[in-house]
Amino acid sequence: MEKIDLLVSGPHFFTMNGDGVGYEADHAMAVDRGKIVALGPRAPMLSQYTAERVLDAGHHAVLPGFIDAHMHIADCIMRGLAQDTAHWMMYGLAPFFHQLDKDTMLLAAKLAVVEGVRAGTTTFGEFSRAPGKICELFRNTGVRGRVTATIREAVSRIYHPGELYEYDAARGQRMLEECLDLSHTWDGGADGRITILFGPQGPDFVSRELLLEIQRCAEQSGSLIHMHTQQGDRETAQTMMRYGKRPVAWLDEIGYLDERLIAVHLTDATEDEAALVARRGASMTLCSGSIGIIDGIVPPAKAFQDAGGNVALGSDQSPGNNNHNIFNEMKLTALFNKIKYRDPEVMPAWKVLRMATIEGARAIGLGDEIGSLETGKKADFILVDLDTPTMAPVITKPMRNIVPNLVYAARGDEVTHAVVDGNIIYENGKLAGLDWSEILPEITDAAGNLAARATADFNAVKGTNAQLMRTGKL
Amino acid sequence: MEKIDLLVSGPHFFTMNGDGVGYEADHAMAVDRGKIVALGPRAPMLSQYTAERVLDAGHHAVLPGFIDAHMHIADCIMRGLAQDTAHWMMYGLAPFFHQLDKDTMLLAAKLAVVEGVRAGTTTFGEFSRAPGKICELFRNTGVRGRVTATIREAVSRIYHPGELYEYDAARGQRMLEECLDLSHTWDGGADGRITILFGPQGPDFVSRELLLEIQRCAEQSGSLIHMHTQQGDRETAQTMMRYGKRPVAWLDEIGYLDERLIAVHLTDATEDEAALVARRGASMTLCSGSIGIIDGIVPPAKAFQDAGGNVALGSDQSPGNNNHNIFNEMKLTALFNKIKYRDPEVMPAWKVLRMATIEGARAIGLGDEIGSLETGKKADFILVDLDTPTMAPVITKPMRNIVPNLVYAARGDEVTHAVVDGNIIYENGKLAGLDWSEILPEITDAAGNLAARATADFNAVKGTNAQLMRTGKL
Repeated sequence: MEKIDLLVSGPHFFTMNGDGVGYEADHAMAVDRGKIVALGPRAPMLSQYTAERVLDAGHHAVLPGFIDAHMHIADCIMRGLAQDTAHWMMYGLAPFFHQLDKDTMLLAAKLAVVEGVRAGTTTFGEFSRAPGKICELFRNTGVRGRVTATIREAVSRIYHPGELYEYDAARGQRMLEECLDLSHTWDGGADGRITILFGPQGPDFVSRELLLEIQRCAEQSGSLIHMHTQQGDRETAQTMMRYGKRPVAWLDEIGYLDERLIAVHLTDATEDEAALVARRGASMTLCSGSIGIIDGIVPPAKAFQDAGGNVALGSDQSPGNNNHNIFNEMKLTALFNKIKYRDPEVMPAWKVLRMATIEGARAIGLGDEIGSLETGKKADFILVDLDTPTMAPVITKPMRNIVPNLVYAARGDEVTHAVVDGNIIYENGKLAGLDWSEILPEITDAAGNLAARATADFNAVKGTNAQLMRTGKL
Repeated sequence: MEKIDLLVSGPHFFTMNGDGVGYEADHAMAVDRGKIVALGPRAPMLSQYTAERVLDAGHHAVLPGFIDAHMHIADCIMRGLAQDTAHWMMYGLAPFFHQLDKDTMLLAAKLAVVEGVRAGTTTFGEFSRAPGKICELFRNTGVRGRVTATIREAVSRIYHPGELYEYDAARGQRMLEECLDLSHTWDGGADGRITILFGPQGPDFVSRELLLEIQRCAEQSGSLIHMHTQQGDRETAQTMMRYGKRPVAWLDEIGYLDERLIAVHLTDATEDEAALVARRGASMTLCSGSIGIIDGIVPPAKAFQDAGGNVALGSDQSPGNNNHNIFNEMKLTALFNKIKYRDPEVMPAWKVLRMATIEGARAIGLGDEIGSLETGKKADFILVDLDTPTMAPVITKPMRNIVPNLVYAARGDEVTHAVVDGNIIYENGKLAGLDWSEILPEITDAAGNLAARATADFNAVKGTNAQLMRTGKL
């Protein structure tokens, strides 16, 4: 008998190997020193291996941990404070956003990690204004972090329509330096669980020169660039004014659309523009929930995939989504695209499940390490209870109904275990590194204080939510 | 001190009184003999009443129980067996649907009741082929049932495009008789929790004569008519061939669009047609999830409301939705309509919360009895835990974030209690009248047997799901 750390056995494995969901019945998976060392039919596996810990997935689906490729978890403390409003950024978010301090951001991040892991997320693609603290949090809670430090050159102030953003080269340089420092400190940290990306905030917020400098830095450190790209009409107006080109066309001109780029949102991109980005080798992150709430738009992910590109899913942020739950993103992605194309066969369940796992892993540059259950890969996986009133009944012949139900029926509370690098980070309703009952009062206090500080601005802005509040709608 | 059955006290009551959400802070609600007898500020209420049972909603929202106005719960055993497919009815559902027997339907109904109540549904608007058994189930589990018996005159066989449905008058009469029998037996049953509606399956499936006879019967018994209306191009093709008119125009001609009609779906209706139905006084049930999956369409509920009509929400059925969860319907309704109109202010959270409660109650003719927390109304309500990682943090000033989070963040598992007629039917994760661990094996067995019987048809149809199964996508 070979000694290993962990053995998982169960009736339903969705490995994501091949071009489908890689289903294997009655299998077992051997995990040792953080990696998958074998996966095969249950009986021979059980006689070959003896494990420190055995996970019995007797009425569960075992699948790769979900990848949430684009998040602002430090905003999670503002959950529910900005939605159902036009001009989300200025009239919804801004009054609260301006009051966020680093301590509050860390509490918010803890909330989002608890929420995300409970719903099966094992890789957190954080785009951050407080990346150092968040790397520590990821280290301590055992999740995988693909962390991006924001780099922004535009001066933060109110701009009127038609006014070009003012660049502050010193600010841009300082933020790039911080990103480089973060990369030196954290890239490959926590046994490789944490990796650092470069995050120009968008082609409108960073000058051509700095964008190209960031690209050189990313090349040198072998990192990727994670950037909001063509995320709306404000961005498009800026690049039109400054360069006479829409964002995608301009990024193409400066050679930015390549394998190094993860283009987030593409909200405002045409299908042709999306296809161009894909053909150049970049990948895309799709945030269906947040773009649905904020803009009422379904971004061109299907065109991106049709052109050969990989698309990851992202939950974005809680003051306009309002959750970090990849089950939610899978379902919304499938449904929104059926509606967009008025075709029920568009974005089937298996496709969005791949976007949450192997296609997402490829999109964020971790396709060789995670995203599928395969010998040699890191052991990031989750167990989903199928004996629940939301997933029952399980049917296997003549058709298996598990994948459609994972996408269209599951709520997220069916996840019983989450494992990262072979470590069980979530079981029995508890996240190993964070005690919910301990952090909840701190989060509530901090949220109340933040909201109090934002009151004057909230009232001054006279946004839709202030009106809804006055008229008894909230 | 006045003695009562039940007292609920907590920080957040959403009564739905007025034209918003009727928020009341730090209130208590007194319930006696099934009705709400008082609702007021906590301190005086606590000194006025002494209750058999006190429910401490200390970190909860208290709100009216959800109304799921259109369901086929007897289909729930086919969850996940038909979606991502064109021609849902014929190529997706039919192979399995034809194998449903009454015993299996009852098991399916039990599954749906457990699922629905756990997610806050207290009123089940069942449209049924096995209504008698389902009335018994509703009686035994304590939920409120608005049960419709299906009446269909068209012969059940395969029709080719362009072929008019053949009517069997005897069949129609027999089904009407059954509906009348059901009404005699069950209308007002279980202490008034169960009421019976008349359910012509659709204007294409029932002749003009029988439709009018049904209308007379409904008038005589003071019931409403619950009918699939303009639910798709097949229906429209039938009424065009038979009457030279689209369904809504034809129903208007025969005087069917009035206060007695609950028009379900209106999938294929234009905004003008929807507005006409509303102006005539009929109400609408919107099944966002199922119509999204099956057709990729967002029905014209907004136009219906803009014309003054009431719209209820419905979860429809599980082989193409794939769940019975009104939180899901609220969220999808809000998001789908934002996308349809490309406007983030369309269908705000408070509006869809009203559709799940008071507007829904009005739409199904129970607006004077349930749907809001008001003295004299029946005590149907739920408690939603706000101290969860999905609902935290709770913010009350300058803006309350609870309603947006109920709609956009809640998964359904935040519901801790469901109360109908003042009886607590769900608490501690258990539904009083149904033991999940007992019924699960029966449901699983029955589902397996159903699927086995459907295998030949499933393979013969060669539908999309058969192809997905063959190619490793399921």
